[in-house]
Amino acid sequence: MGGDHPPETIACELANSLDGEAVLFASKKICDGVSIECKVCPETIEMDDDPLVAIRKKRQSSMIQGVEALRSGEIDAFITLGNTGALIGSTKISLGMIQGWSRPALLTLIPSATGQLAVLDVGASVDPSPQRYLELVEMGTMFLKKQGVTHPRIGLLNIGVEESKGRDEMRQARKQLSKLNNFVGNIESMDVFRGKVDLLLTDGFTGNIFIKTSEGLATFLLDLFSKHIKLETDTVIKNINSHLTNNHYSGAILLGINGLVLKCHGSAGSHEILRTIEWARKLNA
Amino acid sequence: MGGDHPPETIACELANSLDGEAVLFASKKICDGVSIECKVCPETIEMDDDPLVAIRKKRQSSMIQGVEALRSGEIDAFITLGNTGALIGSTKISLGMIQGWSRPALLTLIPSATGQLAVLDVGASVDPSPQRYLELVEMGTMFLKKQGVTHPRIGLLNIGVEESKGRDEMRQARKQLSKLNNFVGNIESMDVFRGKVDLLLTDGFTGNIFIKTSEGLATFLLDLFSKHIKLETDTVIKNINSHLTNNHYSGAILLGINGLVLKCHGSAGSHEILRTIEWARKLNA
Repeated sequence: MGGDHPPETIACELANSLDGEAVLFASKKICDGVSIECKVCPETIEMDDDPLVAIRKKRQSSMIQGVEALRSGEIDAFITLGNTGALIGSTKISLGMIQGWSRPALLTLIPSATGQLAVLDVGASVDPSPQRYLELVEMGTMFLKKQGVTHPRIGLLNIGVEESKGRDEMRQARKQLSKLNNFVGNIESMDVFRGKVDLLLTDGFTGNIFIKTSEGLATFLLDLFSKHIKLETDTVIKNINSHLTNNHYSGAILLGINGLVLKCHGSAGSHEILRTIEWARKLNA
Repeated sequence: MGGDHPPETIACELANSLDGEAVLFASKKICDGVSIECKVCPETIEMDDDPLVAIRKKRQSSMIQGVEALRSGEIDAFITLGNTGALIGSTKISLGMIQGWSRPALLTLIPSATGQLAVLDVGASVDPSPQRYLELVEMGTMFLKKQGVTHPRIGLLNIGVEESKGRDEMRQARKQLSKLNNFVGNIESMDVFRGKVDLLLTDGFTGNIFIKTSEGLATFLLDLFSKHIKLETDTVIKNINSHLTNNHYSGAILLGINGLVLKCHGSAGSHEILRTIEWARKLNA
């Protein structure tokens, strides 16, 4: 629930691809229409609901019910397309933070010339304090360690490499980060895809702009290629898509909380959601 | 001067392509090495110089000399790769603002599925006030009118379409903008390339992240395509590059001042600078 596409269609497509391994949290109408296990959630958190009010008052919404099911161990991972603010609030309260961290953060993986890199935060805190960046480093480092990246190169997304660049918060953040020996400095967004860092730090607003710009432009360029390319070279598109897809899951993982929670874009279709389920499975293995 | 590449190489490449139609403002060493007209500028504004101090103290720098030459009518357009802050300050003081506007803004054109659109601001003001967005609308509208776009559809770059999304400044800006009948609302960065708007408004920090993300990703994807594509399909790459190139000049125009000033990225090579010169010529025609 909470995405841009009709949930009926998505639920139906997901039900066809998932076999007894998923529980859907949805409205009665949707639960009635699908063949897989479904928990009826009569309340709905809207995208413009105040997150804190919503998580207190809409206990029967799909988001709160899903987070509660994760807490009770009924499910191993929770995936949602809903209101990010409500997700942050409800996971923080119900699941609890690990390591004494202040607030969850959203991490996503993107492809680069040398493989992939993690971008953190892509939407959880729009105005982080300079100290928050040190928390992001800890969260990101812990995540990457589990992926086998033991000494991540860390960069700060900014509009120039010089110390003086960006908003005051960025300059303060850079000062904090420069104490770390694996901090490589400011990274301009045009250099991100060159693969100079393993962990790119950014505030949630800028990270969200960055990631959605990338996805919008990639779609635009791949469409442009498809138009110009002849049928016999379709394998080119397939190879490229496979390089991009192998290094990118289109969802984001919510770090810092006790439990595996992934957030898909509101615009995600069933293909993107299935990819996110695949990622969740891999992370849970 | 002030770019990432050695200015000697760039100056030499530019001199080979420009014939008696350009004046170079550069250090003595570079002026000695090129065959085109060159004004020796013994001082250098560094990227981390304080812009206001630099424009007061470094009157013999290439930037100040170039802006002065534009003011005196010696040149028709000034193109620079240097310190953006110093450029804003010196053009505002020397050339003066038009229409009583408060500060120059940087506009660039990007390709979209339906043609092209203007992005404003891509780096002049990192923290604009909500009222500043109305100035940006006026500046952008005046620019687009000259390009034949008489009723531009205007959008605000944000992390969601809902009124509540983004930083407080964005919500205030949206409130100001919603009084305009051609304001279509918030635009998420993934939707920008669909061509829903003619003028995309953003603060200079976010705009810079947006534009450099686009360029970085486009380069990455085009490289990926080139690797996978066979020689006989090189025309595909050429067609696509031509679609992108026809709708994009890689530089940005400084709006709001009395005079034609264009800013190239610090990372621009001679190819990008020549494209910007081409754009300046078109704008001056």
